[in-house]
Amino acid sequence: MPVGTQGTVKTVPQDTLETLGAEIILGNTYHLYLRPGHEAIRRMGGLHKFISWPHALLTDSGGFQVFSLNELRKVTDDGVRFRSHLDGSSHFFTPEHSIDVQIALGADIAMAFDECTEYPADRPRAEESLRLTMAWARRSLDHFRAHRHEVPWQQEFEGSAQSLFGIVQGGMHTDLRRQCAERLVEMDFDGYAIGGLSVGEPRELTLEMIAETLPLLPKDKPRYVMGVGYPDEIEQYACMGVDMMDCVLPTRAARHGLLFTSEGRLNIKNKQYAEDQGPPDPACDCMVCCRYSRAYLRHLMQAGEALSGTLNSIHNLAFYLGIMRRVRDSLASASTVGNSGAQI
Amino acid sequence: MPVGTQGTVKTVPQDTLETLGAEIILGNTYHLYLRPGHEAIRRMGGLHKFISWPHALLTDSGGFQVFSLNELRKVTDDGVRFRSHLDGSSHFFTPEHSIDVQIALGADIAMAFDECTEYPADRPRAEESLRLTMAWARRSLDHFRAHRHEVPWQQEFEGSAQSLFGIVQGGMHTDLRRQCAERLVEMDFDGYAIGGLSVGEPRELTLEMIAETLPLLPKDKPRYVMGVGYPDEIEQYACMGVDMMDCVLPTRAARHGLLFTSEGRLNIKNKQYAEDQGPPDPACDCMVCCRYSRAYLRHLMQAGEALSGTLNSIHNLAFYLGIMRRVRDSLASASTVGNSGAQI
Repeated sequence: MPVGTQGTVKTVPQDTLETLGAEIILGNTYHLYLRPGHEAIRRMGGLHKFISWPHALLTDSGGFQVFSLNELRKVTDDGVRFRSHLDGSSHFFTPEHSIDVQIALGADIAMAFDECTEYPADRPRAEESLRLTMAWARRSLDHFRAHRHEVPWQQEFEGSAQSLFGIVQGGMHTDLRRQCAERLVEMDFDGYAIGGLSVGEPRELTLEMIAETLPLLPKDKPRYVMGVGYPDEIEQYACMGVDMMDCVLPTRAARHGLLFTSEGRLNIKNKQYAEDQGPPDPACDCMVCCRYSRAYLRHLMQAGEALSGTLNSIHNLAFYLGIMRRVRDSLASASTVGNSGAQI
Repeated sequence: MPVGTQGTVKTVPQDTLETLGAEIILGNTYHLYLRPGHEAIRRMGGLHKFISWPHALLTDSGGFQVFSLNELRKVTDDGVRFRSHLDGSSHFFTPEHSIDVQIALGADIAMAFDECTEYPADRPRAEESLRLTMAWARRSLDHFRAHRHEVPWQQEFEGSAQSLFGIVQGGMHTDLRRQCAERLVEMDFDGYAIGGLSVGEPRELTLEMIAETLPLLPKDKPRYVMGVGYPDEIEQYACMGVDMMDCVLPTRAARHGLLFTSEGRLNIKNKQYAEDQGPPDPACDCMVCCRYSRAYLRHLMQAGEALSGTLNSIHNLAFYLGIMRRVRDSLASASTVGNSGAQI
C-alpha cells in the first residue's frame, strides 16, 4: 500500500496511482488531524471525497507519529499528551479520540490505538508497553462499535462499513507477541496487524516475529505487517501469507534518487548515468521506463526539478506493485494446481 | 508555449503536456548549456530525445538569462562574458557560440542571439543596444546557415530542418523597432520575434510596441512575442495576429498558488477555500477541475506538498491553452465566413 501521509502519495497524482494499479492507499491520522483537521474532512464527506480517491483507504491510529515525532510526549493509562510538530500546540490522544478521528476521516480500514514499542526494549518495558496496547485495543474496539455508524459516508454507501484492525505488539519477545495475538483474536477484530517491526531491529528478528505471530492470526481475515519494507522483504512476507503491507520506502527513496529495479538498487544521481540512454529498469514496462532515460532522470535530480520526485516515485511504486502482482499470480496458480506449498 | 526551462515544464510530466494539447514547449539554452551541457545533449541525439518530447521545441538564445542572471557580465561587440549562476565559472557567449549550442540542442526553432534592452532605456542606450542586436542577428544567421546541417537529428528526419528566428529589439522607441524589423526582414529569417517586452514597462507601451512592429513582419511567417503574458494579454495579442507567445507565468504562478480561472485570478491559499468543495474553475474541464476541489488544492499548498505545484500547473496550462484554442477557432470561423475583421 503506497503511503499518502497528508492526503497525497507524495508527488504522484491520483489518476497515476490508478494507472499503476494501486488498489488501496494510506492516510496518516496524526497529520490529517492537525491539518486540515478531521472535522473539516468529516464536513466534506470524508477522506475519499476530500482527496478524490474512490478506492480503498486505510488510516493508521496516529500513535506511531505521536510517539516518533514527539520527544516531549507524556503517556498515561488514559492516553498520550503531545505537542504538534507544526505549531507546538498541546493535544491529547486517547484510544477513543483516535477512533473518533478515524471515523471522521472515514477510511475503509481504521486501526486500533496502540503503543509502538521501541527497539530495543527489555522485558519489563515490553510487558508494560504491551499492557497498554492491549487495554487500548479493547477501548478502541468498544468505542468503534458504539460509533462506527457515524462514518461520514454511512448514508451514501449503505451496506458497506468501516473496519477496525487490531495491532499485535510485544517487542522482540515471541511469548509476548503470542499472548497479544491470542487476546486480540478473542476480541474479534475485522483484521489484524503486526506492528512494532522495522524499528531498527535486525532483519532476522523481524522475520522471526512475523513467523511466530502470523500462524496465530485467522487466515480468513486480512493479516497486515506495518511499515515494511525492501522489495525482497515484502515478497518474502507475502509468500509467508501476509496480505497487506505499507511502507514509505518506495516513495521516500525515490525522492532521494534511489530506484528499485530488477537489477538491484540504482542511485540515479551517480555520474555513470549522465549519458545513459537506457531505461531506469530494462525489465520494467511502467510509464517512466517506457518513456524516459536514466540520463534524463539523473538530470532532473541534478537540476533539483520536482518532476524528478514524481517520475522516480512512479517507477518505484510500479516496481513494488509489480512484485505484489507476481506474488498474487503465483499463489493463485499454485492453488489452482492444488499445490499447497504457498500459504494463501 | 509552456516554458520548460531545464528540459522540463516544471512539475508536469510530458504525457500530461500531451494530454493538455501542448504542441510546442521551450527549452532555455543558458540553463541546458550549463547543465547537463549541450555536448552531452548532442551526443544523446538532441533535446527532443533527451527529454522524450517528440513534438515541436524552441530554444531561446541564452541571451536573456545571460543578462538577467548575471550582474557581473561584460558585454563587447564580440559577445558577453558572464559567470555561471551555479558555480561562478566564467563563460563567453558570442552569437556564433549561441547558435552552436542551439544546433547541438536541436530544437525545431532556434533564436538569434540578441541583447534584451532593459527598461527604461534612453534613446542613446536603446540605439547602442539595437546596434549590437542587429550585428549579432547577422552573425547568428550567417553562422546558422553554415552549420545548420550539424543538428543531431539531421539524418534521422531528413527533409525537416531547424529554423532560426530573428528578434526585434529597440526598447520603447517605435522608430527603432521599425528600423530593426525592416533590417531583420531583409535578412530573411524563418520567423520573427518581438523581444524586450514585459520587462517592466506599462502595458499600454507593450501594446503600442506590438501594434507598431507586427505589421512590418511578414504575415506568411510565424510572428512571436516573447515573454508574455497574462491571460487577457495573450488573447488580445493573438487576436492582433501574433502566432506564438511563451511565458513562465502559468506555471510559476501555479507553484505559488495563483490560479487563472474563468472567474478571474484565485489565490488558492486563501482561507475562504478551506472547505470549498467546488472545482478550481467551474467552467474548466481539465483533469484537475474534473477531479479535485479547491479545498484539496488549498490543503496541498498549506501542507507544502509537491503535488500542489503539479495540479495547479496543469490547470493553469489548460486554461492558457484553452484561450489559444478558442482564439484559433474564432479566427478559423471568421475566415470561413469571409469576415476579415480578425487578422490571421
